[in-house]
Amino acid sequence: MSLDQLTILAPGLLGGSVARAARARGVADRIVIWARSHQVQQAVAGQPWCDQVAESAHAAVRNASMVVVAAHPDAIIDLIKAIGPSVKPGAVVTDVGSVKGTIARAGQAAFGRRAHFVGSHPMAGSQLTGWQHGTAELFEHRTCFVTPLSDTAAAAVDTVGRFWTSLGANVVKTDPDTHDRIVAHISHLPQLLASSLCAFLAGRDGGWRAFAGNGLRDTTRIAASDPKLWRTILEMNHAEVTEALKAFQLELASLERALAKGDWEAVAAALERGKSYRDGLH
Amino acid sequence: MSLDQLTILAPGLLGGSVARAARARGVADRIVIWARSHQVQQAVAGQPWCDQVAESAHAAVRNASMVVVAAHPDAIIDLIKAIGPSVKPGAVVTDVGSVKGTIARAGQAAFGRRAHFVGSHPMAGSQLTGWQHGTAELFEHRTCFVTPLSDTAAAAVDTVGRFWTSLGANVVKTDPDTHDRIVAHISHLPQLLASSLCAFLAGRDGGWRAFAGNGLRDTTRIAASDPKLWRTILEMNHAEVTEALKAFQLELASLERALAKGDWEAVAAALERGKSYRDGLH
Repeated sequence: MSLDQLTILAPGLLGGSVARAARARGVADRIVIWARSHQVQQAVAGQPWCDQVAESAHAAVRNASMVVVAAHPDAIIDLIKAIGPSVKPGAVVTDVGSVKGTIARAGQAAFGRRAHFVGSHPMAGSQLTGWQHGTAELFEHRTCFVTPLSDTAAAAVDTVGRFWTSLGANVVKTDPDTHDRIVAHISHLPQLLASSLCAFLAGRDGGWRAFAGNGLRDTTRIAASDPKLWRTILEMNHAEVTEALKAFQLELASLERALAKGDWEAVAAALERGKSYRDGLH
Repeated sequence: MSLDQLTILAPGLLGGSVARAARARGVADRIVIWARSHQVQQAVAGQPWCDQVAESAHAAVRNASMVVVAAHPDAIIDLIKAIGPSVKPGAVVTDVGSVKGTIARAGQAAFGRRAHFVGSHPMAGSQLTGWQHGTAELFEHRTCFVTPLSDTAAAAVDTVGRFWTSLGANVVKTDPDTHDRIVAHISHLPQLLASSLCAFLAGRDGGWRAFAGNGLRDTTRIAASDPKLWRTILEMNHAEVTEALKAFQLELASLERALAKGDWEAVAAALERGKSYRDGLH
């Protein structure tokens, strides 16, 4: 695809990667960036994947045919509301937040029929954060959800899908609420388990971690993620996460009952079901 | 250290690695191996780290100053009982099982005062199993528990400690019951969580795994482990595992209550405690 102007607002790891990937793959003639901090503005100005640094979010979006709101989840909705009056008529706006329901509705409210909001969630990340750690390859072969509402214009949905495909991602289209239910299970619940396993072990005997094998290391790796970011994600996906955690607790309680009464057939069956699922995860 | 004869019984990944590491580091003048299957007997006979294949476990241990029982956990105790009458007086016998209490007591009963049993648990492994996947470096910088009972002869404990140190491991001495409590928390509980998370997700919508990011992948990696082996480990460490799982469920229930009522300070505090523990896990 070829856009005349791609604007990226508030780039972090994901926004910095969008800019690099878009330049590397010739997706946009012009890449315009706005960052909140003066320091980041100055630093990105010299980058080969930044043609212009805008002085305000308004100025940045005014001539863009496509806008990527790459801010932290807690800042996305305010930024969408702020640029609502300034985007070019017919422009397509997307974001990279990991929760989509509230953002999709905020986008619809902000742009009405003048421009098009189609939320995205690229399932790509790194322990590193910040635009300077972005790479042109971050999205390659990674799932990217594209989450239109039922009345989102089909052409805009298509544009956003082609955009992420151009950056190397595998696009999956689903409505925002289904997306939020899926990630509550395959991303937010694992985060809660890794964090609470670590919190639990800290309360038992923090010194035991010196004996940890690769099993504990792998299982808890994501517990090192940014607690502020995760608090925001959990707040935004509150209902779905709570439901998933409650349902998982039932699974765990049933395993505990089998263990407690020495029902080894039931324990083995749970281990087998787990292995069969994991063996199919490539 | 230098042993005249090291005997390894029923080598799998760990036993095959012990043989290779012992040869590479000149730990034993003679390495004698016994395997249950005729096929394995023939295959190890040609290996540079095997000086003799014995026709029976009895013949294998008769002249050994040190014996490593490297069988699967469910076969260790029977093998220890079987070789009880045949080991050389004063010999030191160890094993590589991941649960130590029942094995330590079986060892004490089998050898009495004639020979010395000191259980070991090298925290080393691989997705691969079988003696052919062993490596001389498997134990390097890995924790190896050495688990004497209170009346085990100090010299024998020292020998087993030096043995694993010679193979590159970091030796941690603790009594068998403390060991079982530690691994219930840092190894067996993570296994239960990974397996039950996968079993739970399979019951929700197995297809969602196609969208998995690295978080789910890491968190569930060990769910692919051998269910038969894990059933045995859980059976052998039944009481400690059940206690750890019950206590963890309280931690999880408290997080769920905080989520359900939107107490974001409490949620954030749990995430912070988890991160602080994980950041200290090197």
